Amino acid sequence: MTDFRFELLKQDKDSRARRGRMTTRRGVVETPVFMPVGTQGTVKAILPEELKTEGAQIILANTYHLFLRPGHERVKRLGGLHRFMHWEGPILTDSGGFQVFSLGQLRKISEQGVRFQSHLDGSHQVLTPEISIAVQEALGADIIMVFDECIPYPSTRTYVADSTALSMRWAERSKMARSAQDGSALFGIVQGGMYPDLRRQSAEGLMDIGFDGYALGGLSVGEEAERMYEMMDVTLPLLPRDRPRYVMGVGTPENLIEGIARGVDMFDCVMPTRNARNGTLFTSFGKMTIKQARYADDDNPIDPDCTCYVCRNYSRAYLRHLYQSNEILASMLNTRHNLHYYLDLMAQARVAIEQERFSAFRSDFYQRRNAEDFSV
Amino acid sequence: MTDFRFELLKQDKDSRARRGRMTTRRGVVETPVFMPVGTQGTVKAILPEELKTEGAQIILANTYHLFLRPGHERVKRLGGLHRFMHWEGPILTDSGGFQVFSLGQLRKISEQGVRFQSHLDGSHQVLTPEISIAVQEALGADIIMVFDECIPYPSTRTYVADSTALSMRWAERSKMARSAQDGSALFGIVQGGMYPDLRRQSAEGLMDIGFDGYALGGLSVGEEAERMYEMMDVTLPLLPRDRPRYVMGVGTPENLIEGIARGVDMFDCVMPTRNARNGTLFTSFGKMTIKQARYADDDNPIDPDCTCYVCRNYSRAYLRHLYQSNEILASMLNTRHNLHYYLDLMAQARVAIEQERFSAFRSDFYQRRNAEDFSV
Repeated sequence: MTDFRFELLKQDKDSRARRGRMTTRRGVVETPVFMPVGTQGTVKAILPEELKTEGAQIILANTYHLFLRPGHERVKRLGGLHRFMHWEGPILTDSGGFQVFSLGQLRKISEQGVRFQSHLDGSHQVLTPEISIAVQEALGADIIMVFDECIPYPSTRTYVADSTALSMRWAERSKMARSAQDGSALFGIVQGGMYPDLRRQSAEGLMDIGFDGYALGGLSVGEEAERMYEMMDVTLPLLPRDRPRYVMGVGTPENLIEGIARGVDMFDCVMPTRNARNGTLFTSFGKMTIKQARYADDDNPIDPDCTCYVCRNYSRAYLRHLYQSNEILASMLNTRHNLHYYLDLMAQARVAIEQERFSAFRSDFYQRRNAEDFSV
Repeated sequence: MTDFRFELLKQDKDSRARRGRMTTRRGVVETPVFMPVGTQGTVKAILPEELKTEGAQIILANTYHLFLRPGHERVKRLGGLHRFMHWEGPILTDSGGFQVFSLGQLRKISEQGVRFQSHLDGSHQVLTPEISIAVQEALGADIIMVFDECIPYPSTRTYVADSTALSMRWAERSKMARSAQDGSALFGIVQGGMYPDLRRQSAEGLMDIGFDGYALGGLSVGEEAERMYEMMDVTLPLLPRDRPRYVMGVGTPENLIEGIARGVDMFDCVMPTRNARNGTLFTSFGKMTIKQARYADDDNPIDPDCTCYVCRNYSRAYLRHLYQSNEILASMLNTRHNLHYYLDLMAQARVAIEQERFSAFRSDFYQRRNAEDFSV
């Protein structure tokens, strides 16, 4: 039996934005929420305590990576993923599908599941709905995902229809594969590519099976943002109001704001952490490329409006120096700032919805970015 | 005028170990002390606040690196190195000599100084005693070092004698080059290679010039540990009791214990931080190579006797996983543990000297390592 609960606390009047609260067996998550990505059992370049300080409520871990290394059985023997990585809050695991399908030539799909070669050592491996669920349960995740095929974009209607039907059969098998005593929540994943009617069909099929929450998969895969928003507009209103809605692998700050406006409760993305390591910083004015020569003598913080640890203590000039010098501290500080930006943006959105001023918040968000004022 | 002071608080009876206190313009440093190395304006992979938590009292920065990038004038414009890197405690800078001489074919020595090519872009550069002091003062270091030639090992007696004489003339020029209003302390550096009489001669020459403290240079350059200890034994008793004594670039935990027993007050070394990034951890039992397969399922902390953040919260199995997965967090956690080990060893040595049980502490140190018990 799942210990999972979702309460809808407030529904915006001007948009479909919603303020909710998920209760997992490892604590409460206020929504809308952004989940930092901890692929290999660590959110890269940041300590769990710092994650918490910056406002992370729940993190994501990748089943594919942990399955291959260090192995889910090992993690289980060592007391589960939470203990292993010293993160006490909730963890959501993906099903491994997305990573497996990214392997291209190295994988082969059948009704049963996917055979693939490990990107680490070329060893032959198999993931099926049953194995994926067993791995996620062994890791001890609090929210687990059905095993599905992530559809490439663009794809023909026939391919999308067949794949979506296969994912539906896998979703059913995923639910069947759950062990009765596991206390995690299981989410279904709506597929259907960029075809509104197939999205609808997928959503309805999943609701018939019944899940604790519903995700939108196969978005942010190269399509225009407008197309992504269209798929949200088509799908989200069909989903039950009393279940959390999660858009997987999304996205930019704009995508988050637009997703919230369309009724999304949960997001995850490597963008804040990966961009940090590449020297791209998020600010209220837009993105900043810290390696640019213009910052060499700039004594200002990354974002004068930001109150994070990095902005309180370090200059753009220092961060540029660290980046140019290939210092690990560059990744550490940039990661901390970017996660603060993402998590704080979500916290502000939650307050705005509560205070019935989400539309004003959304306009203000765009207005600041249009200012594009990097000097102070 | 310098604001620098050194008090000798206690002299061990069974050895030449001493407990002292340096007062710099940026605060007090209890000795014997280990100084973590922050080459490029950051102690790699650790935040300044964490350094302080682990007990760092003073850090070292490298003049050569900061001279080339981001440039000392830039650091000065940005408020000095302390503000730039967000470290409020004392900073000691080396003179750049050691790094320049490591460049091999890329440098040319004359009476005036050294011409060399930057390892970053091949640009032609010059360092002289006057330039080195100006750079160190511009950075705002609290303890600065004379510009000297670091003698390769082994070297002929003639080479060592000539080089030591040149370094003496440079030491004099370094002292002359100081700006009257700078509040830093200036340390001389005893050279003389592995020749006891040349070491003596160098020490006496430097004392004639007069410095705030005295360093031993040209050690830990490939010689046997016994040879290093012999040079300490020959040189340290000659130096004034009321000035701090610093052995540059040293060393292993054993080197530190032996150095303290011979009257050394200050050490610096990249070993704890560099080894951390290479997966070598220091423990009370000796060194541990975390990537070894034997740790894959080991739920114990690095060192069961260690109280550091890492040992309180993470297993060997997790640290091995992070290292194998090339995660930045591996460097972060390993660095934090290794620095804790080094800094805590020094703290324990200070207490042992105060409590007149340094000899017992020294024996105990060796006994634990001989146990070589990595299991628990």
